[in-house]
Amino acid sequence: MIKSVKPGQEVTLYGYVHEFRDLGKIKFIQLRDRTGTIQVTVKNQPDLELNREDVVKVKGKVQESNIAKAGIEVISEKVEVLSKVKKKLPVDPTGVVPSELDTRLKYRVLDLRKPEIRRIFEAKSHLAFAFRDYLYHRGFIEIHTSSIVAAATEGGAELFEVQYFEKKAYLAQSPQLYKQIAVVGGLEKVYLTTPIFRAEKHNTIYHLNEAISLDVEMAFIEDHHDVIKVLKDVFKHMINYTAEKMGMPENKINEIKTYTYTEAVDMLNKHGTKIEWGEDFSKEHEKALYEILKEDAYVITDFPADIRAFYTMRDPEDPRIGRSFDLFYRGLEVSSGAQRIHIPEVLEEELRKRGLDPLDFEFYIEAFRYGAPPHGGFGMGLERVTMKFMNLNNIREAMLFPRDRTRVTP
Amino acid sequence: MIKSVKPGQEVTLYGYVHEFRDLGKIKFIQLRDRTGTIQVTVKNQPDLELNREDVVKVKGKVQESNIAKAGIEVISEKVEVLSKVKKKLPVDPTGVVPSELDTRLKYRVLDLRKPEIRRIFEAKSHLAFAFRDYLYHRGFIEIHTSSIVAAATEGGAELFEVQYFEKKAYLAQSPQLYKQIAVVGGLEKVYLTTPIFRAEKHNTIYHLNEAISLDVEMAFIEDHHDVIKVLKDVFKHMINYTAEKMGMPENKINEIKTYTYTEAVDMLNKHGTKIEWGEDFSKEHEKALYEILKEDAYVITDFPADIRAFYTMRDPEDPRIGRSFDLFYRGLEVSSGAQRIHIPEVLEEELRKRGLDPLDFEFYIEAFRYGAPPHGGFGMGLERVTMKFMNLNNIREAMLFPRDRTRVTP
Repeated sequence: MIKSVKPGQEVTLYGYVHEFRDLGKIKFIQLRDRTGTIQVTVKNQPDLELNREDVVKVKGKVQESNIAKAGIEVISEKVEVLSKVKKKLPVDPTGVVPSELDTRLKYRVLDLRKPEIRRIFEAKSHLAFAFRDYLYHRGFIEIHTSSIVAAATEGGAELFEVQYFEKKAYLAQSPQLYKQIAVVGGLEKVYLTTPIFRAEKHNTIYHLNEAISLDVEMAFIEDHHDVIKVLKDVFKHMINYTAEKMGMPENKINEIKTYTYTEAVDMLNKHGTKIEWGEDFSKEHEKALYEILKEDAYVITDFPADIRAFYTMRDPEDPRIGRSFDLFYRGLEVSSGAQRIHIPEVLEEELRKRGLDPLDFEFYIEAFRYGAPPHGGFGMGLERVTMKFMNLNNIREAMLFPRDRTRVTP
Repeated sequence: MIKSVKPGQEVTLYGYVHEFRDLGKIKFIQLRDRTGTIQVTVKNQPDLELNREDVVKVKGKVQESNIAKAGIEVISEKVEVLSKVKKKLPVDPTGVVPSELDTRLKYRVLDLRKPEIRRIFEAKSHLAFAFRDYLYHRGFIEIHTSSIVAAATEGGAELFEVQYFEKKAYLAQSPQLYKQIAVVGGLEKVYLTTPIFRAEKHNTIYHLNEAISLDVEMAFIEDHHDVIKVLKDVFKHMINYTAEKMGMPENKINEIKTYTYTEAVDMLNKHGTKIEWGEDFSKEHEKALYEILKEDAYVITDFPADIRAFYTMRDPEDPRIGRSFDLFYRGLEVSSGAQRIHIPEVLEEELRKRGLDPLDFEFYIEAFRYGAPPHGGFGMGLERVTMKFMNLNNIREAMLFPRDRTRVTP
């Protein structure tokens, strides 16, 4: 690794040719790997010809240098060419010549060579690690559910159809039902990271048709506040751990406050953004609320039950209220959760209220007929968190190979 | 949690009714959660009627007991019923009455309540954690690739078709191409855990149509032995860490030896199992080799190139040999890997040798035209490792909700 070399060492370094200067008898390579760049001085290979992004292996000795920017250079004993560039580079990996997002996504293989792009995925890797690490060490069990499912578990978002041998099947919109079965089945506290699939036709900067969901589900809760506590703790850990690892202390967050939906509606109306109690937040409402609160992260809880998923438990004191919540990070909803209904008759009633037939959900309801503890959980969009953490303008930037309305390659 | 209660404590416990004995004025509950069971003595609720697997919340005081098996019991102040069982239990969660695998998978919600079933998924959780933890702390970056792809990246296994808006797309058989782009693109060392999908029609005890793959890919290698070293190190860590956590020290492994394919062929023939050089191992060959070697884990390397994937690098000294390897655990192939070809012309040549048209793989080959380091990696089947670690007879036991030839629910 380039970053770790010290004067006096005999080294073998691998990397990309970031720059090549040919002065005839003497040649200079700026050699790059993901840890940094170093100057290589070549005096014994007069025929060496290199282009930007060729891959080479360099044997040589590290010494101090007055000319090289880093104050050290490698005096080459031998440069071996491992791979030659065969085409004109369609994206400039130094980033000097900017490219459109479409072109960059098409040539991710070059786009990823820019340190600022690589950092997005370093941050994403730390965020995913921190999520799991926190939960694992607190007795949560990682589960793996299946992406191929027989039916929708949630209304709303549309489904991608799969030809599963002779049958029609679908790609899971969420692991909702499965994580619930796992905890009701006695695993009690689980987490998972899994792709989710939504056949939504709109192409926005906030939506992907395939995304990574970080999910938690836990049994034996008193109410949704037990889940909110875990959500806040794990989210704070994810952000603060990653801020530390990435050298971005300005991203650290302290307390995450909770506001009720009713309080949020009052604040919005008071500050001139009209919203009726019972309405779901629009993007404009969310933006206005962020401008009012000016907090990096907050939880809004106790949404009207009728605008939430049918499996949301109602507040027994005020059944208009659902025991449900969202976490907003830098103004964007990044997580949703709730206490779930664990009584089969209540599930049936909620389905009927929404004009749905309980028989179509029999397979789901069945899971609660053999003794089911009160439980709840949340799902979190890893790309949404990464997007806001890195201040990106488009969620596609946070997915290596995004899938959207028109894109299935690379 | 039941396991952690101590005499003298005032406690609130949640759990399932494992057993209920009603002696009129006095009633006994064996209360169960995932950590254990405890006796609850109820003297002040003469009307309390419970059935097995009802879910209750118990407030009371822990005291020492001469009668209770654990030596302690809870004297109940109040038992609150949170959920009543509504149907006859189709699977006995105490495991006293055995059920067929099909029935158990249908009622995972009850099946999972057996400690020995739960232990399978605890082991799987530890294995997955150990895999990532090891690599993360050694500078590997976790990536997330997409499951919806435009085309096959490997021959052989069949593909599930997805209707992706107006287009046909497929479910990824492996993240092969994508992890290669990520390392060639400059992430250098990556890992991921992702579902993989194979539309294979045969229904065996070793195959799932959806499985979890643990993948690694790394750049700047000298040859496949650099990859084999990482594979051995991470696998040993996974097994030994999980053996420790699960209290199964007998599962620990020491040295993992490497044998060449040629050595394995010689051993097999010498011990009376016929195999020609150039033939792929059959299940019988694998079994015979395990009986000869009697080692829990070993790597077989240097397979004939022609029986491996087209992207396998050939040995420049002996081009009949591919720089590829398999890891066997308790006789079952659990991982496969190789050094990959990073030179586009060589990839084209390998495709033509196999009667394939390089134009069909242009999208893949393109990634190597802009400078590509030598690289390699492996994929590992998490369910296969879990199956052998827990000595299971059928790989379906290692998947919460397996997908096979006929099963898409639950």
